[in-house]
Amino acid sequence: MLYLVGLGLADETDITVRGLEVVKKAERVYLEAYTSILLVEKEKLEAFYGRPVIVADRELVESGSDDILAGADKADVAFLVVGDPFGATTHTDLVLRARELGIETKNIPNASIMSGIGCTGLQLYNFGQTVSMVFFTETWKPSSFYDRIKENAQIGLHTLVLLDIKVKEQSLENMARGRKIYEPPRYMTVAQCASQMLEIEEERQEGVYTPDSLAVGAARVGAPDQKLVAGTLKELSEVEMGKPLHSLVLLGKRVHDLERDYIREFALDKAAFDANWAKSYASS
Amino acid sequence: MLYLVGLGLADETDITVRGLEVVKKAERVYLEAYTSILLVEKEKLEAFYGRPVIVADRELVESGSDDILAGADKADVAFLVVGDPFGATTHTDLVLRARELGIETKNIPNASIMSGIGCTGLQLYNFGQTVSMVFFTETWKPSSFYDRIKENAQIGLHTLVLLDIKVKEQSLENMARGRKIYEPPRYMTVAQCASQMLEIEEERQEGVYTPDSLAVGAARVGAPDQKLVAGTLKELSEVEMGKPLHSLVLLGKRVHDLERDYIREFALDKAAFDANWAKSYASS
Repeated sequence: MLYLVGLGLADETDITVRGLEVVKKAERVYLEAYTSILLVEKEKLEAFYGRPVIVADRELVESGSDDILAGADKADVAFLVVGDPFGATTHTDLVLRARELGIETKNIPNASIMSGIGCTGLQLYNFGQTVSMVFFTETWKPSSFYDRIKENAQIGLHTLVLLDIKVKEQSLENMARGRKIYEPPRYMTVAQCASQMLEIEEERQEGVYTPDSLAVGAARVGAPDQKLVAGTLKELSEVEMGKPLHSLVLLGKRVHDLERDYIREFALDKAAFDANWAKSYASS
Repeated sequence: MLYLVGLGLADETDITVRGLEVVKKAERVYLEAYTSILLVEKEKLEAFYGRPVIVADRELVESGSDDILAGADKADVAFLVVGDPFGATTHTDLVLRARELGIETKNIPNASIMSGIGCTGLQLYNFGQTVSMVFFTETWKPSSFYDRIKENAQIGLHTLVLLDIKVKEQSLENMARGRKIYEPPRYMTVAQCASQMLEIEEERQEGVYTPDSLAVGAARVGAPDQKLVAGTLKELSEVEMGKPLHSLVLLGKRVHDLERDYIREFALDKAAFDANWAKSYASS
């Protein structure tokens, strides 16, 4: 049996009791470690599980899935995923491969950022499609997120923006020379996301949002030091939220007063927030 | 401190290790038991936690929140919610009241149906806003869900439909006579949801979907006997999915071949599924 086990969002104690039982009994335990991260080291997980953990990078999962699945028709293999196994990054391809090999699979759900973002007090019912924001370079500034946000905004919905992480990336030079030297990991911040959003609005000029549009920044959702801020995109483009992981929600106009009451508590500037709300968001 | 603790989706073992630690130490433990249910009895939870659990019905949460919060400025109170505390039903009002009373709150996230539905293999990125389906009566057939689905469908997105549950409801006669006698609980099935959807399309005739539109029915997500089926709304209106809770996803047209490959596995009629897909969903 292949078990896909969600680890939740923050640290080793966010695994479910059901998931922990599976991990303790599995013959091999893999940790998917390239699309998201827990806020603790692998060693801490191993100590908590009482088991060795094999880190599965992108190469292993995408090209070496048969190694992961080896023997899983007879013994149990656990594949650990930060968040939920079918959340922000889905592992449907691994399950499809297991099916081809006649291996049964079971899924152990857990908190995903796709639902955990509800901790902002914004109603999950009022979210449209989720978008991703990648690190811009000088020459590559993909803006398809803008079209998706536009679709959400036109029907008044919030948009969750998931922020890029870069782990185990090679520089172009090291890649060209075949040197397996990796750059330090990078995690996009709320400030950088807000800046990139404003840069694209500046370029496209379709008025999907403005520097005064309200948004919520979230850092380390579910962790004891979780941090939430509410403010304009302009304000958020300068905010300091601390350690990763960060996410951002752009508010839609179909927003409820209860949502306002909830997020006002962590507004960067309450007077500005109130003025902005009254101008552009107040329910008619 | 008021802790809002997510219980996940299926049984007592779906609580997180972090959540279980909180429950074991809290002075009082409440279980919110009117917007969703676990698939186990309260007694099983109490045995697992080693603690008494107070069932909080709608009346207690909505009118008696100060009883729940009593003393939470000094001692720890745990408020348990099936799924995630800010998932399908949010408890922002309880947190707002705690804030007014100067009581700190902490949230322990868990799997919610809003992300757990990813187990269908449909990408959460491709979902629009979530809708609710209530039990129709002879005289009351609210159809606002139809307008929301229409908005999602116009941009090609999937729609998660959450199905009504009725627990601790009084008949009109018992209510009129002030008798605290409650009807047996009722949980909407996938079949009933699909039928009601078709009934409203029949009435509104806007072509948002048809009897041939593809959908996925999900029962007991996250439980060992989780069941998924894919088929047309017509097929789903006759399907038998077993015990609660059920959910339904109406497919959007902006659907990926990987999603097709995943859900085809549990299609009620694979030949019909393929024909339907080729006709209306195949990517251009």
